[in-house]
Amino acid sequence: MASASRTGRRPGDSGSREAILGAARAAFAVGGYEGTSVRAVARAADVDAALVHHFYGTKHGLFLAALELPGDFTAALPALLEGDVEALGERLVTFYLGLIDAEATRGPLLALIQAAMTNEQAAELLRVFVTRQVISKIIAALDVPQPELRATLVGSQLVGLAIVRHVVRVAPLAMAEATAVVAAVAPTVQRYLTGDLTQAATRG
Amino acid sequence: MASASRTGRRPGDSGSREAILGAARAAFAVGGYEGTSVRAVARAADVDAALVHHFYGTKHGLFLAALELPGDFTAALPALLEGDVEALGERLVTFYLGLIDAEATRGPLLALIQAAMTNEQAAELLRVFVTRQVISKIIAALDVPQPELRATLVGSQLVGLAIVRHVVRVAPLAMAEATAVVAAVAPTVQRYLTGDLTQAATRG
Repeated sequence: MASASRTGRRPGDSGSREAILGAARAAFAVGGYEGTSVRAVARAADVDAALVHHFYGTKHGLFLAALELPGDFTAALPALLEGDVEALGERLVTFYLGLIDAEATRGPLLALIQAAMTNEQAAELLRVFVTRQVISKIIAALDVPQPELRATLVGSQLVGLAIVRHVVRVAPLAMAEATAVVAAVAPTVQRYLTGDLTQAATRG
Repeated sequence: MASASRTGRRPGDSGSREAILGAARAAFAVGGYEGTSVRAVARAADVDAALVHHFYGTKHGLFLAALELPGDFTAALPALLEGDVEALGERLVTFYLGLIDAEATRGPLLALIQAAMTNEQAAELLRVFVTRQVISKIIAALDVPQPELRATLVGSQLVGLAIVRHVVRVAPLAMAEATAVVAAVAPTVQRYLTGDLTQAATRG
């Protein structure tokens, strides 16, 4: 307690957490994921590195906390990528709709997308997140050509779905039943992940 | 000239245009397309209704000007909807990529999407635009069930494509050749427009 009053901050108080997350966002945006260390973030936030580890575990946990994404978002991906590869699109879209259709988990995800639309620092965080957390896992799980292009195509459909359904809210997609949305969008995601992307759209 | 100095505004000056467009955006956002009249916009902008018609033609022209979209955007849609229906997805995606890949036409479109992400007034304008300008034309041109859902699904893919390719700029979709993007995305748009949307994603 005496040491806490000396520094003006108690370990675990929200001021320290906010300072750490603010420093982490700035550091990840400037240095990317690889160029950022827990130690440098702690220094910038004026706290001990042990406190950062105490709050957020590894650099990975710090990164996810800085993004303010629901914790299970990336944790769920490996399990989704397992199992019947032909139903992967359906599993992914069902899981993603569950996230964006629930108010509790929708907020941080939409906030990240909205921030990335207007702020280059947030856009860089989203790029790092997609590249490291999503694309790398898809590459590891699927034996397909052009896995990076496939992952970003999936991203384009899922980001657009969140925007039309929950931000701009254009009817009838905005209020369509989740099962109808899955039936419509899952084949798109499935084809992006495992289909032939070079086939001409026309038969001629 | 004497009358111009009396009102402090010359017909045709950019001040009048700005006042009219500002009043139009506010009116369309509050009243929607149907609830907005050229006369009410003129009154709110403190100009004569004839001046609004002189600048923007009909209410439709005023609405498009308020959105700041490239003029040929909706004009091109009927022609795109004509012709071989099985190549419709390819024509639409090729046309849309042409718009968003060219700096001159990308700006207003991205600005509208970005504004709609963070501003409810802009979101309402985009909803009105999509409903009246895009969905209605697709309904008129295609004999398919659920044309409104199909149009919003297409919108979700195209909006997401613009965001990943040009706003958040996630590699490799951000720098992929237009032909590769068309090959990847056109079948999605084609299926949304004319395919079976109720088919289960899995074969089981």
